[in-house]
This record gives sequence, structure tokens and C-alpha cells, in this order.
Amino acid sequence: MNELLEKGSLRLKWAFEHMPVMQEIDKKFRKERPFEGVKIGMALHTEAKTGILAITLANGGAKIRLASCNPLSTDDSVVLALQNEYGLDVHAKKGETQEEYYSNLNKVADLKPDLVIDDGADLIAMLHTTRRDSLKKVKGANEETTTGVSRLRAMAANGKLEFPVISINDAKMKFLFDNRYGTGQSVFDGWMNSTNLVIAGKRIVVAGYGWCGKGIAMRAKGFGASVAVTEIDPVKAIEARMDGFEVMKMADAVKDADAIFTVTGCKDIITGKHLAAMKGGCIMGNAGHFDNEINKNDLEAAAVSVRKVRDFINEYKMEDGRKLYLIADGRLMNLAAGQGHPAEIMDTSFAAQALGMEYVLNNHSKMKNKVHDLPDSIDTLIAEIKLRSMGIEIDALTEEQKKYVSGWEEGT
Amino acid sequence: MNELLEKGSLRLKWAFEHMPVMQEIDKKFRKERPFEGVKIGMALHTEAKTGILAITLANGGAKIRLASCNPLSTDDSVVLALQNEYGLDVHAKKGETQEEYYSNLNKVADLKPDLVIDDGADLIAMLHTTRRDSLKKVKGANEETTTGVSRLRAMAANGKLEFPVISINDAKMKFLFDNRYGTGQSVFDGWMNSTNLVIAGKRIVVAGYGWCGKGIAMRAKGFGASVAVTEIDPVKAIEARMDGFEVMKMADAVKDADAIFTVTGCKDIITGKHLAAMKGGCIMGNAGHFDNEINKNDLEAAAVSVRKVRDFINEYKMEDGRKLYLIADGRLMNLAAGQGHPAEIMDTSFAAQALGMEYVLNNHSKMKNKVHDLPDSIDTLIAEIKLRSMGIEIDALTEEQKKYVSGWEEGT
Amino acid sequence: MNELLEKGSLRLKWAFEHMPVMQEIDKKFRKERPFEGVKIGMALHTEAKTGILAITLANGGAKIRLASCNPLSTDDSVVLALQNEYGLDVHAKKGETQEEYYSNLNKVADLKPDLVIDDGADLIAMLHTTRRDSLKKVKGANEETTTGVSRLRAMAANGKLEFPVISINDAKMKFLFDNRYGTGQSVFDGWMNSTNLVIAGKRIVVAGYGWCGKGIAMRAKGFGASVAVTEIDPVKAIEARMDGFEVMKMADAVKDADAIFTVTGCKDIITGKHLAAMKGGCIMGNAGHFDNEINKNDLEAAAVSVRKVRDFINEYKMEDGRKLYLIADGRLMNLAAGQGHPAEIMDTSFAAQALGMEYVLNNHSKMKNKVHDLPDSIDTLIAEIKLRSMGIEIDALTEEQKKYVSGWEEGT
Amino acid sequence: MNELLEKGSLRLKWAFEHMPVMQEIDKKFRKERPFEGVKIGMALHTEAKTGILAITLANGGAKIRLASCNPLSTDDSVVLALQNEYGLDVHAKKGETQEEYYSNLNKVADLKPDLVIDDGADLIAMLHTTRRDSLKKVKGANEETTTGVSRLRAMAANGKLEFPVISINDAKMKFLFDNRYGTGQSVFDGWMNSTNLVIAGKRIVVAGYGWCGKGIAMRAKGFGASVAVTEIDPVKAIEARMDGFEVMKMADAVKDADAIFTVTGCKDIITGKHLAAMKGGCIMGNAGHFDNEINKNDLEAAAVSVRKVRDFINEYKMEDGRKLYLIADGRLMNLAAGQGHPAEIMDTSFAAQALGMEYVLNNHSKMKNKVHDLPDSIDTLIAEIKLRSMGIEIDALTEEQKKYVSGWEEGT
Repeated sequence: MNELLEKGSLRLKWAFEHMPVMQEIDKKFRKERPFEGVKIGMALHTEAKTGILAITLANGGAKIRLASCNPLSTDDSVVLALQNEYGLDVHAKKGETQEEYYSNLNKVADLKPDLVIDDGADLIAMLHTTRRDSLKKVKGANEETTTGVSRLRAMAANGKLEFPVISINDAKMKFLFDNRYGTGQSVFDGWMNSTNLVIAGKRIVVAGYGWCGKGIAMRAKGFGASVAVTEIDPVKAIEARMDGFEVMKMADAVKDADAIFTVTGCKDIITGKHLAAMKGGCIMGNAGHFDNEINKNDLEAAAVSVRKVRDFINEYKMEDGRKLYLIADGRLMNLAAGQGHPAEIMDTSFAAQALGMEYVLNNHSKMKNKVHDLPDSIDTLIAEIKLRSMGIEIDALTEEQKKYVSGWEEGT
Repeated sequence: MNELLEKGSLRLKWAFEHMPVMQEIDKKFRKERPFEGVKIGMALHTEAKTGILAITLANGGAKIRLASCNPLSTDDSVVLALQNEYGLDVHAKKGETQEEYYSNLNKVADLKPDLVIDDGADLIAMLHTTRRDSLKKVKGANEETTTGVSRLRAMAANGKLEFPVISINDAKMKFLFDNRYGTGQSVFDGWMNSTNLVIAGKRIVVAGYGWCGKGIAMRAKGFGASVAVTEIDPVKAIEARMDGFEVMKMADAVKDADAIFTVTGCKDIITGKHLAAMKGGCIMGNAGHFDNEINKNDLEAAAVSVRKVRDFINEYKMEDGRKLYLIADGRLMNLAAGQGHPAEIMDTSFAAQALGMEYVLNNHSKMKNKVHDLPDSIDTLIAEIKLRSMGIEIDALTEEQKKYVSGWEEGT
Repeated sequence: MNELLEKGSLRLKWAFEHMPVMQEIDKKFRKERPFEGVKIGMALHTEAKTGILAITLANGGAKIRLASCNPLSTDDSVVLALQNEYGLDVHAKKGETQEEYYSNLNKVADLKPDLVIDDGADLIAMLHTTRRDSLKKVKGANEETTTGVSRLRAMAANGKLEFPVISINDAKMKFLFDNRYGTGQSVFDGWMNSTNLVIAGKRIVVAGYGWCGKGIAMRAKGFGASVAVTEIDPVKAIEARMDGFEVMKMADAVKDADAIFTVTGCKDIITGKHLAAMKGGCIMGNAGHFDNEINKNDLEAAAVSVRKVRDFINEYKMEDGRKLYLIADGRLMNLAAGQGHPAEIMDTSFAAQALGMEYVLNNHSKMKNKVHDLPDSIDTLIAEIKLRSMGIEIDALTEEQKKYVSGWEEGT
Repeated sequence: MNELLEKGSLRLKWAFEHMPVMQEIDKKFRKERPFEGVKIGMALHTEAKTGILAITLANGGAKIRLASCNPLSTDDSVVLALQNEYGLDVHAKKGETQEEYYSNLNKVADLKPDLVIDDGADLIAMLHTTRRDSLKKVKGANEETTTGVSRLRAMAANGKLEFPVISINDAKMKFLFDNRYGTGQSVFDGWMNSTNLVIAGKRIVVAGYGWCGKGIAMRAKGFGASVAVTEIDPVKAIEARMDGFEVMKMADAVKDADAIFTVTGCKDIITGKHLAAMKGGCIMGNAGHFDNEINKNDLEAAAVSVRKVRDFINEYKMEDGRKLYLIADGRLMNLAAGQGHPAEIMDTSFAAQALGMEYVLNNHSKMKNKVHDLPDSIDTLIAEIKLRSMGIEIDALTEEQKKYVSGWEEGT
């Protein structure tokens, strides 16, 4: 077995070992074979944890085809292992060109899938535009991430969405953990791997105080940074302030920033005007879905020279001599420069994917063509399995307490 | 001016000085007089910040009558100042008997109010039962707290609620701040005032990991405690674990507890079986709305003697010699043994009350007899005023960004 | 029993109940009576925990006389209980004039003490200057605090110290806990009691990053503040920065400060030039030994009016309309506006006092007239008793490990 | 230029870019050439930051020879760049056998160095035993780490140390930052790189609460772990408890441990009896100098099988089915599985090395053959340069303040 293949093989096994909820679902799927004869087209970050999801669905009877949902987030060792050891149909490599990226997505569309799992909604958008030939057969889909859900809600609002989609992102066992503790940790995996620089004592700016931004800010603080947050929502801005962070406009924040992490789901968070005022030496990284949060055109326009100064880091030299740094070409730094979210975090996110997929299969005919929440009962089931796997027992309401909380008569 | 009156007078002015949103609303209400000719019956913790709400509503033209919503949470100095300096109609004192408590609520009902502000829903429940004579005239109400909202939802579900109620508790500018940072801080005000004991190095058990519990646990950690959480909801239980806390059943938690704070909104969180296993010296306090979270009957039954050992602390001696302590008779320890939430926190909670009351007045005829959310626009308005008062400026989306976030076409 | 006396009596008993090391020492002293016939003059903050120290020394046979070491830090209820219930010779009241303060210290000198316990070195300075009549008899002393130790080191360096003094402050079981966790907590007791304002979201400036400053900064962060630190020592300044705090000159820090806590042991930390640039509404408090860290002359000179706006808070109105606030007249805010350090913290500090006093008594003839450290063996003994009282068991080195750590031969 | 060489070259330049104090020293050394004609033998972790120290000494005129001080901590890319781009004399590779390791140290001894820089004291021990032929010429040395300083103090105590050594480890600008923030961060670099597992919600056991242990525990907490500490020193044990950590014997701690990090400087922290009680799935890592903190003999004896399950992780299967994991063969996990301390941290540690080396050269004749502290003036100088490089300005005492703090007359 070659070295890369072995590495991928070990990573898959290690991940599975640390995904107890997926282990239970895998057992169930192997037995019940819910996806027998069903084709599932998947576009996800193709690394070890995603591999476990794909294997689990396949073990449930599905014929799957998997492409990456991002040109830089693929773990080539895992691709090799999925193909050679598990016989899966995978089309992805780290560092795809735009052309290769879409070519791979097209291959997924070629499968004529019954069900779709998407992350960022590129595949679903494609099925609704250039690949309408494959659209009709699709019964429904899951979408993994905030950005994708936003896009699909916009589609639905415009009457353009032609099959039902479950927002996995809005499952509590996903966003409360994946977005917060997952992103919170993996951004610093990417940081340490690419920079070997200290976090303590740095001024770190976090753009966006949604669940991902909360996670990054919290961990930056836990590492000894002083943190500033930028926001557009006044409530979240106050929340950030009450959590002990400075809150200001990006135009002000860049002046003191040693590092900036964008995680807003919106484009043009850092543009030319910010670059002009930015502190020399500042290191920029993005953990939002698309690589447009830091405007790379503006960065290139402002630079007199660009060069790689370390694995995953490019230096942009400004005319006035300042050096600005960009991690992983502005693509998801936690996946491109790190190993992505921890296995235990993806365990519950992908449990929501697996059980959500089963739910769509069984219920699509009753579901409108819009974005749906994952049923609460599935969320709770995942939580219960997870809790058990952590060896934690919790209290339950007594009959009398149940009556009390559903009543209103008892007062002071 | 006597000493108590002066104290209350100073406390009111100090609070108002630190409630910038209420200052703006007060200015608006003085000018517009929205409540001219309107009678508002209020049952709230009668201390300085509540006083500001009452004064502001009166300045808006309302005839108000205020009783306390809890027998132990009144600040007598503030009552005196409201009565003597502001000429308000207030019926409350610290340490009311059950009889006095209900007598005061009845006085509020006697007012035949057009609108009601309640905290815990005792007043609203009374209006629907023993005081149905005053029910008809009520156009609508606000409810302040989680417990009250639960009760009212139960009433509505049973078709028993006969006017519309706004859940102030579910306003973002309330629960995100009041429940979390307010309770998080004021519980320790009550703790330090009543015990003068160290928090660092203690095992502190927090019952309930809702917003209040999150706040208490977070601050206990910030003070150097090791924290255990009890829950009945598996998702919240995992969240607590991922925030670094131990999670276990109460029956296990009591064995190591140096202090226990209950904040669940449910009764019988600590009962006889827990007391039997509890570590000697453990100090119990409640910050949930009612004094039934720690079962006092069980505590008295288990004790061979009870005596006051410090202001606000009773010692219960068990037969085996263990001494267990209860703060403020199991009533809201942050109000009974401390000064309640900080002024800046109540600023936004009570802004939601003031503007919510105005909203009910203007819209009650279109509102169903159920629990309503405060309109988002009011929430955002409060946030914007607050942010301005904090001297914080934030970013706004450009036109192009607005288009981007409401679109779906742009992808990788 | 009158109310105040009862309060003091309960506070003493409660404190003793939570001082397990002092309980063991009290038992030992009652049995061994080491201070039989010895007169001990004490100048300490006269509140409950200090009361326990005095009682313990008296139970060990000493004739004690106790005055306060600060005009504002006395708990009158405790004084009453010490006098009436324990028959101790105490001369202190809250809010002493300068004259009363020194008159009380003189009474301690009148005792002609054999041993002295001081806090801030006012008593020892007096014995070396105006009360040299009482100097000769003194065999040695303990000094409690950083400021006092500094003064005594200066005296010794100038050849002016005429008896040996143990620096209790430098005992590990004192400064690591009392200065850090004690001050860290009690400053916020004073804050909450005097202001009822929120800490989260505030910019808090801590002047001095010694052990006390570290404690305050850490707890402010734990409460959700954003913290800036001022220092004169470059190493401590970097340490503060690496702990996540902003570090800057006071002249810059005052511009954004919502609250400032001084704890440097030096005077003139806040002077006129700082007041001129200070953010309106800023609340100043001092937790350093003397009330000269915030220059009150400058504050009065800059103010057009001064008035009390709440218990323990004076408002100074500046000519330009800004209002600045001072807690407890710039005296130790944790004692003057709060209840001082928690009982468990003072347990080990005062254990060092009690055992240190015994050590001086037995060893003074061999000790030079300088500032001595408490012997390590006493420090360790206190730690061991404390650990046991907390129910904690720790590892011990095996014989082989002992050999290993004292050797050098074993390598890679 | 081949790929590995380019990687090392970039890493060196990146490190130097982020070591501002070393930049100033390099400038000074290039100009003053203090080591002209001096031979320096070095045994350090051979990676990028160490490379900068070696280059700087060479730029100061020294003829240096560098071997690794640990068989697993070498960065091969850096070795290549040092040899080919900087022409340095380096003898190290990642994954040395015991034989290769000592052969490389012997080559350093062969240089007949005038001065020595050691890390762990293996080289100095060798010079005093098997390579006494090279001993005489040595004028003095620096020692980098806690473990090495312990060994050298033991040598000196036994009268065996034959030249003066400066304890770089005890410089404030070293241990306060390198041991705490350096180890605190780099251990998690190693963790994330080798495991891709979540830290939040895990029970992490830290053995040893010295500066390194404090750093690891603090960061684990910052990442959302619940942390237990083991100690042998009662004072440190209480400190850990007051910092919010559980404290217990290792024999108890292993039962709940998801991960254990040892950093004690002592051997046999984890032995057979601990392995027998250890929670299945537990991952062990060491960040202490030697690989004997986790007893590998015991681990192998207890295992029925051993296999690599991921880069840097071996799985030991116990007879009862439990799987236990060891990171990087029990060697310094932050260097072997991660990239070592951040550049900015090593900046001040190696500034102490560089200036300490110069100090030894100039003062060895006046220094006794024992372990010396780095002079305070050098420590302060490093702090001042560092502070300036961080753009931080701090206050200075006025003349009047200086007089005040050195006096004792002014009191209450």
C-alpha cells in the first residue's frame, strides 16, 4: 500500500473510531438498507469525516458520487483511500482549477441523483441552471452550511427552488457545535499549521459574530488574544461587546489588526480601502464558505509583488513597503491549511446529514419546495446518542414536574 | 429628608443616569404622552430600575399602580422615594407575608387597569381567576420572565388566556442580556453580599442551562470555580459539556457541591433525596422565579434545627450533623440578597417593556389572545439606541452586498 | 442582644466556620498556650476574619490590643462583638478621622507590646518615631501587605529598622492567594455593592499588574469586561499583553475607561492631567493600601461640585460638564464598600500571621533587624492543612523519583 | 532548489521576520563581532527558531556546530537550509536512533568548543564524563530548560560542575513566556496536527502545575476542556484548584481522562498501575524534556498489540480490549508532532541565549562553577526591545514617585 493511501486509510479509520453517533447509524443502515437502489449526489469537503458519511450512506444501500464543494479543501490521501479501499466514486483533488471544480460537480450531476447533499449550494444551483437535465429526478436535498442555506432561501423566495431541501445547518446538533466549537478550533489548526506564530498578545479581528464568529472569538480569547469584532447587526454587536470584545467598523479595526479572520457569509468584507489602512504584517484568513470575503482582486491590485513565504501563505507587498499576508488564497483556512473540524464535531453534523437524507427520502412527497428544518425528534435522537457515547447521564422530569411545567395555576 | 428616603432617591437617579435607552424613551413619552388616560397595573420587583420604568410610563401619561411580584425582592428605600418624591402609587415592602403579597396584587387589580405588566404571571393568573371582575377592561399585557411566559403559553394552549400578551422575555434585547449577563452578575452580587465566601476553587452546581444558567455558569468559571451543570434537555446538556462544564444528574452533583444555584423554572430541583446525599456545608441559592426549586418542606423535614447564621442565610442542621445553608429562603437570591440586575442591563429589558406596552395599546384589537413576540423592529430600535449610547459604530452592508446576500447566483 | 452586635457575632462565627486552618491553629494554641504572658499590639482591618486572628492569639494566651490600619475598613458590628462577646481590647470604628485613627494606633503603642502585627507599617513607623518609648520592648513583628513590606525594606536599607519583621506578604500561602484571588474577588464585591452597574462590556483599566492587579484583571475578564493595564515594569507589561489585555500609558487609558482600579502601592497614579482627559462617567476605585493612588487634591481642584450620589460614591462634576465618580473616598474599596476578602482566603493569610507570630516569639533573638521571609516549612504546613480541609489528595514522589530528580546522570 | 530545502529556507526567513529582538541583536552582533574566533557547541531542538539563533551567533563571528538535543524534534527542512544556504555545521535529523543521537553530540564535543549552549544538559553531562578531553577548553555555558537546570544544580551541589552555567530558563523573559504561553500553545499544535480531535468537552489531565503545566491547563480551559491537574507540591496543588481545576492523584485522574499531558520534569508519571485503571481511548502526550514521563516499558508490557494509527500516534491495545494512544513516542509532542513554540516566543528566549552567551564570554573568569541567573539588566533590556517591537508604550515613575516608593515616612 503506498504511503498516501495508507495515510488516508488510517485517517478514515481514526475518524470513524471517534464518531460514535455515525457508528450507530452505520449499524442501523447496514441492517435496514434504507437507500437500496437510491442514487445520492454529494458535494462536500472531501476529507476524512466526509468520507465516513459517504461510506455510511453506501453501507445503507446508496450508490453515491462525491465531488468536492471547494477547490482547496480536499484531502488527497482520503480520496485515494475512498476509491481504493472502499470502492467509492469520488471526484476531487486538492488545488482544483475553477474548471476542474465545475467539471467534477458536473460528474455528480451526470449521476442523475435521486437525492443530493450539498455544501454551499453550488451543486443545487447548477442543477437549477446549466444541468436542468438532471433536475427532474431529484426528490430532495440536504444543505450543510449557512451560506448555502441563505442562497436556497433566496431561491425559494424567488420561486426558483424546485425540490425540498433540509437545512442541516439549522439543526441544533449542527450549528450549536459545528459552527461554534468546530470552526472555533479548526481555524486555529489552520493558523498554527500555516504560521507557527503566537496568538497570545495579538490583536485579532473577527468579522461576523454569528455562531462561527462567536466560536473563533471565544477561542482567540482562550488563547490570550485581544479580540475586536465587526458586525452589521446591532444586536450581535452588543452581544460581542458584552462578551468582552471591542466592536468597531472594519475600517477602524484594520489599523491595529495583527490577524483578521472573516466568517460572515458575505463578500467584500476586506476591500481596497481596508488594505490601504491595514497594519503592516497583518495576516488575513477566511473561514467563510466562499473566497470572496477578502477581495483578492483588490489585494492584487494594491500589491507591487506577491510571493509564497510559507506553505499556505502568500505575502503581498504594498507600495509603501507594508507586507500583508493571506492564508490559503482566502479559501476556508481551516480546511485548506488545517485538517478541518474535529471528528467528534462532524459526528453530529453528519448524523444530521445521514438521518436527514433518510427523512427526505421517506417524506419528500409531502414536503414543499422550500427550505425545511430537520425534525426536532431527529435532533433530539442525535443528542441522546451523543450524550450516551460521552458517558453522561442527565435528569428527567418526574410526572409531577411535567404537570407543573405544562400548567399555570401554581404561583407564589 | 430621612435616610431611607434619601437612599432610595439616590438609587433611582443613579439608575436613570445609567439607563440611556430609557432616557430617550422618557423624552419621547413626555412629549407624545401615549398613555394619556390609560391605567397600567404593574407587578414587578420593586427596586430602582423598575422604579424608572414606572416613572417613565407615568411621564407618558399613564396612571400606574405598582405591586411587587415577589415577597422578598422589594427595595424599601425605593418604594419610599417613588411614593414621596414621584407621587407614585406603590404597594410593596421587603419581606411580605403570603397574605400581604396577594393583598397588594389585589390592589393592582382594584385599579381596573387597561394594560398590565407582569413578572411571573401571578397578577395575570389572578385576573383570570379570583379577580375576573377586573379582567374585561384589560386590553393586553406584557410578561417579563421565562416562568411567566411558560404559564401564559400553557393558559393560551388551554384556551384560557383572555387578552393578548407580549413576551418581553423573548425579545432579543431582553433574554440575550438580562437572562445571561444580568443573572450571571447579580447572582454573585447576592452571593458575595450574603456569604463573603470565595468562589475560586469551589465546586459550583448550576441547575438548568438555559440563558440564565449559561450566565451563572460562565461567571462562576470566570471567578475560578469548577462548575457542574444539571439538565433535562440532551442538547443543552451537550452544550454545557462542550463549554467545559461537568454534566451529571443532580443526585450525583450534590455529593461534591460547595454551592448549588437553581435556575430552571421548574419545581423540586432539590428534594429530600438530594439533601440526604448532599455534601456538608453546601450553600443553596435559587435564581429562578419561584421559591419552589429548592423544596423547603423537604429541607425543614430533614433538619433537626434551623437558625439564621448571617443576614440572608439560614442554617439547616441535619440529623447526621451536616449543616446545609439556604440563601434568602430560596427566593430570587440576586434580588433578595443582592441589588438585582445592573442598571444598564435593565435599561434594554425595560425599554422593551415601555415600547411593548405602547405597542399593545395601539395594536391590541388586532392581536389574538395568545403570547406574542415583540416586533423585531422594536428590538432593533432598542439595540441601535443602546449601541449609540455605548459609543460604538458598526458597518452597514453596501448596496452590492445587499444584492449579494439576497441572491443565489454567485457561487465558487 | 442588639442587632448590630448580633450581626457581628454571626459574622465572626460564620468566618471561623470557613477558616479550617485557623481552626486547627486555634486548637493547638488553646492547648499549648504559646503566648502566655505575651502582649501583642495589632493594627489590621478590623472585620470578621481579623477578629478570628485576634481571638486565636488570645486563645493562645496573648493579651492583645487591636486598632484598625485604615480609617474606613472597620466593620462596626464585629468590633462590638469582639468587645462584648469575646472581651477583646479593640479600638476602631468605620469612618475614623485622621485624628481618631492615630489616637487608636497610639493606644496600641500604649500597651507596650512584646510583638506587633501591622498592615501597611503605620504602627511600626510610629513605634520608630513618635512612640520610641514603646519601641525597646518590641521583640519583633509581622507585616501583612506589599506596601508595608516596601516601607520596612526601605527602613532596613537605611539602617532604621530596630527589630526583625516577618513579611507575611511574601509567604506563598499569602500572596499567591490573598493578593490574587482575594483582591480579585473583593474588588467586585465593593463594585457591585456600591454601583449596581454591569461589568460586562465595560472598558476597565487596572493600574499595576502585580499579584493584586493580575487578580483584578483576570476577574474583570471573567465578568466580560475588556481590560487595559498600565505598568511601569516592561516584563509585567508584556505579561499583561500576553494575557490578552491592552497595555498603555495611563494618559491614554483614561480616554476610554468606564472604570479604573488602582492597585500599585505607589501614589499619584491618577492626577490632574489624567482627570482632564478622562471619559465622562468614569468610576474610579482604589484597592491599594493608601488613599493616595488617586490624587484627591487634584480631583477636588478640578471639580466645580462634589456630592454623594449613592452609598460609597461621590460625584465630581468637572467644569466641562463631565461627571467623574470616586468609590469610598479612594480608600480600599474592597473593604470600605465591600466585606473584604473571603474568609477562606484570609484563612491561610492569617494562618501565616498566627504561626509567624509564634516563630518570631521563639526566634527573635537569632533574627537580624530586617525583613525576613516566613520559613518555607510553615508555608508548606499551612498548604497541607488547607489541602486536607478541601478534601484533596495529591501524589508524592516515590523513592526512585526522588533519586531521579536529585541526580543528573540519567539523560536521553 | 529542491522542495525540502525551499521549505526550510522559507521557514527560517519567516521566523526571523517575526523575531524582532533577534533582529536587533543580529544587527549588533554583525557590527561588533563579539564571538570572533570563538567556537560554540550547541545542542538544541534543530528547527527554524533555533536556526535563527545559530545564524545570529555565526554573524557575531562564532564558529558554531549544532546537534539536536532530542531524537524526534528536528525539522529536516531547516537542517538542509542551514547547511546549504547559510553554510552552517549542523548534525541532526528527525527520528535519530539513540546511537545517532549520541554520535551527533559527540561531533559537537569534537569541535572543542569555547562555549556551550545546551538544552536538557545531555551535552554538558557528556563533557563531564565520556568527553572530558573536550572539557578543559570550555569557559562556560547556557542551559535552556527546567530539566537541564535541575540536572546542573544537582551536579553543582555534588561539586561536579566544572564550568559556570547561566540558567536561561530562569530569565523572566524566558520562563514567563516560553514555558507558559509557548508550551501552552504548541502542545495544542501537536494535538491538532496528530489527532484532529476536539478539545472542548474533553477531560484533560495535566501532570505538573509549574509554568509549563499552567500554560497547558489555561489553554485547555480556553478551548473548552474540563481540566484536572496532578501535583506533588501542596502550594501548587491549591493554586491549580483556585484556578478552577480539579486536583487529584494520577491514579484517580486516569479513570476519567480523555487525554493526559505530562510536563513534570520527573520520570514515571504514568506507570503500569495507572495504565491498568485508565479510561479506554485515552490519548497520552508528553511535553516534558525527556521521554520517560510516560513509562514506555510499562506501556509495551501491558499491550497485546501496538500499531501506528495515524501520523505520530501509536495505539496500544490492552488485554481487556481498551485502546490507549501515545503521541510521538512520548517525546516532546509540541516539537515532534507540531512545529514547536511560536517564533515570537522563541524571540525572547533566544535573545536571552544570545546575550547570555556574550555575558559568559566576557565574565566567565569571575563566575563560580555553578548555575547562575542571567543578570536582571539583560532581562530588562530584552523586555524593553520586545515592548517597543509590539508598539507598546508604558508609564515611568516620576522623580517624586521614585522618592515615595523608596521611602517609608509617608503613611495614612
